[in-house]
Amino acid sequence: MFSEAETDPTLSADEYKPRALRLRTALLKAQYARLERADRSLLIVVAGIDGAGKGQTINLLNNWMDPRHIHTLAFGEPDARENQFPPLWRYWNAMPAKGETGVVFGSWYSRLLRECYRKKFNPERAEALAAQIRRFETMLTAEGVQIVKLWFHLSPQAQAARIERLNASPETSWQVSPDDYKVQKKFDRIRDAAQLALAQTDIDHAPWVVIPSADDNLRTIRCAETILATMKRRAIPVVARVSQQLPRLGPIPDRLGELDYDAHEAKHDYDSELGLLQGRLARAVRSPAFAQRSLVLAFEGQDAAGKGGAIQRVVESLDARQYDITPIAAPAAYEQARPYLWRFWRHVPAHNRVALFDRSWYGRVLVERVEGLTPPGLWRRAYGEINDFEHQLTESGAIVLKFWMAITQDVQLERFKEREATPFKRYKITAEDWRNRDKWDEYALAANEMMARTDLPHAPWHLIPANDKRHARLQVLRAIVSALESRL
Amino acid sequence: MFSEAETDPTLSADEYKPRALRLRTALLKAQYARLERADRSLLIVVAGIDGAGKGQTINLLNNWMDPRHIHTLAFGEPDARENQFPPLWRYWNAMPAKGETGVVFGSWYSRLLRECYRKKFNPERAEALAAQIRRFETMLTAEGVQIVKLWFHLSPQAQAARIERLNASPETSWQVSPDDYKVQKKFDRIRDAAQLALAQTDIDHAPWVVIPSADDNLRTIRCAETILATMKRRAIPVVARVSQQLPRLGPIPDRLGELDYDAHEAKHDYDSELGLLQGRLARAVRSPAFAQRSLVLAFEGQDAAGKGGAIQRVVESLDARQYDITPIAAPAAYEQARPYLWRFWRHVPAHNRVALFDRSWYGRVLVERVEGLTPPGLWRRAYGEINDFEHQLTESGAIVLKFWMAITQDVQLERFKEREATPFKRYKITAEDWRNRDKWDEYALAANEMMARTDLPHAPWHLIPANDKRHARLQVLRAIVSALESRL
Repeated sequence: MFSEAETDPTLSADEYKPRALRLRTALLKAQYARLERADRSLLIVVAGIDGAGKGQTINLLNNWMDPRHIHTLAFGEPDARENQFPPLWRYWNAMPAKGETGVVFGSWYSRLLRECYRKKFNPERAEALAAQIRRFETMLTAEGVQIVKLWFHLSPQAQAARIERLNASPETSWQVSPDDYKVQKKFDRIRDAAQLALAQTDIDHAPWVVIPSADDNLRTIRCAETILATMKRRAIPVVARVSQQLPRLGPIPDRLGELDYDAHEAKHDYDSELGLLQGRLARAVRSPAFAQRSLVLAFEGQDAAGKGGAIQRVVESLDARQYDITPIAAPAAYEQARPYLWRFWRHVPAHNRVALFDRSWYGRVLVERVEGLTPPGLWRRAYGEINDFEHQLTESGAIVLKFWMAITQDVQLERFKEREATPFKRYKITAEDWRNRDKWDEYALAANEMMARTDLPHAPWHLIPANDKRHARLQVLRAIVSALESRL
Repeated sequence: MFSEAETDPTLSADEYKPRALRLRTALLKAQYARLERADRSLLIVVAGIDGAGKGQTINLLNNWMDPRHIHTLAFGEPDARENQFPPLWRYWNAMPAKGETGVVFGSWYSRLLRECYRKKFNPERAEALAAQIRRFETMLTAEGVQIVKLWFHLSPQAQAARIERLNASPETSWQVSPDDYKVQKKFDRIRDAAQLALAQTDIDHAPWVVIPSADDNLRTIRCAETILATMKRRAIPVVARVSQQLPRLGPIPDRLGELDYDAHEAKHDYDSELGLLQGRLARAVRSPAFAQRSLVLAFEGQDAAGKGGAIQRVVESLDARQYDITPIAAPAAYEQARPYLWRFWRHVPAHNRVALFDRSWYGRVLVERVEGLTPPGLWRRAYGEINDFEHQLTESGAIVLKFWMAITQDVQLERFKEREATPFKRYKITAEDWRNRDKWDEYALAANEMMARTDLPHAPWHLIPANDKRHARLQVLRAIVSALESRL
């Protein structure tokens, strides 16, 4: 993989100049064409041997292209706040919009490279990290983010010579960092670690390209050629195939149909149990154990099933400074310019906080599926992506609970009519709600499949018969309190 | 101001219940009406004596209204990162969208209250802080943010009794913080400080309301009534008056007309001086002194005046990891849902960073004025708001420079034609550019007035004759290098 690069190939100035000129024009053209179409973004991952000229090359490419639309995303060690979130959180938040280019220093490979570099190398942990990266990059590709990954490489002799040369002049010595000097002694281990990491993550739709870096001219040309080729590539065939690999299920159980919709709660029992449950919830989220955890609650269900009322009974016992409620509607243009899960990642809670979602990321496999807003290739892939998202949340300390508030058609009709009759509730009911009602069975089918595919031990679905609001609210609170008390 | 509150008035349960019921319905209706219109947001500033029941009351109001559209914005002491920005930066970033409500704990009054509380009280510093707050709140009000400020107050005896009562029960003792116990000894000083701070910032369009807090019932009702009255208020007459108070200028000098458009630079001189200037710039932004500063560069000028090219020559000598370029176009819907300056505050640079703006906040008094996109009352007020914004930036360590790239009409015509003739530059020229060209004189008038009103010593305008691109680029670099070298 690195054999060519370690021969330290060079390119003469005579060969360089005309190629550089052509590439420069071609890159600018390609960039403008992408900006005009604005259908894909580009992430350039920058990694490699310290002191190989990564920064210098990227600066030059910024000068060749229109730097207003290239965003350098540089990450160091995560700080205390970042450590409260899943490791990929900070990369999600920095995602450029379609048409734009991001250049990532300190990317999601830092953890994998460190793992591969350890003296006590643990192949399973490395493979788990690599698998997560492959899933992440596959998802991004499917959602219109192109990815190319550059590994800057050269021989240890050339590395030493290069940093000596830079250090000799005051004009360039700022480019040399203490880390550059440490490379020599551990060169072989770094190379072996990189070999391992790259081999596990070199996928068709997000390939690694090794850039021979001893010679400024050759490094620049190879880098520019690689980026240009990526910018011009149109098809993403592999990802289309990936989307077909849904796990086979047997016949999907009709969990919605099996619910006991007659369940109800008497007013008196309700009031006293509600108070008790809210008290237990209040104590749980104020316990010292919760200071290292967070709580994510997603509410789904038919229109008028009582999501808002249930949410209200949950937050009644919380301090307003501790929670956020995010109502989810159709994505705005700036949200559509990014991968689907981006707008949910932005609302992931920090430690000691509660995030409630009134509708959620499950819209992908519910409304977007039923209304045909998203092609089947995309929403079918979403089951796996959502499971992965929730898994990352729970891994970083979040307690994730999902509620389906279930009502019957007759009760929905009653509630719609009541909303229309109550002046200040009228805004809650729209023509769309009536249209959705016509597709009752399709929504039920989608909901049943969603629950079959995403009901996981660490992020379970709770199906709540909600014809009786009191019963539904108690059920929701019971589930939250029991999850918190058992896990804290 | 606090005399009524310190008599600790109460409200009987019999009086409370019917009023609470009516208020609850009215608040919910008012909230939904605002959500439907989505023309104004609401900020409720929460302050007062520690242990007066601020949190408890806000939690209750969250329960009375639809909590999905109330955002609790709680701020503690600024951390190391927040301290790199102007003090108001974090409040700007948290601004709710129109239709929504924000409840602010730890608001922009914390600094003023601390200042008023100091043993060595400095009236000038307090008045400067108060004046900044008044300007901030006036601007927000004018831009569709309603503000009401609640001061929770009670007698020292009632405060002591209240926290004892809370502390006695395990259900409520979490509400008591160590600060609540410190109140007793310094009650008089706290009250005097509050009196000072509130008197200086009690303005018609963002009034202070003292909430007697000894009694839960009365506190809740007063709070709810105040918020309801604010939600229902429509007119903002004072702010309209404020907008008329523009400083009188003499005849506005035609600075654009006086430029020497024949200025030019020979190719050979250009190349060598460009390199020298870029070297000096590179050293300046890598100097230890810059680690506590930042650089903000705003580029304005006629279409095709060469803003992009000048920006490119500036960033050529910077490390891509150190700068961001923000191209400014018409605001998106989510940006229009917030006060005008919000989208620029989001791009204010941290220490040791460079932020370049290709077009800027000056669009308010240029394109928005000339094209009639913004009523005169708003853009006329913008001069002062912009000066204030830039003043806050420089106060917090930023070096702010503004460039007007000036060309003549014939040169613009040449460049437009060249852009149309070059395939990959064609996207840079639109029908809008041709339309803007027809309003050449109106834009010149707006630019001259803008420079007369916003050319300040700490944030100067540099007028750059740009018919000759080489000359223009050197002038820009000279100005930046000279500002950096003299201030670092």
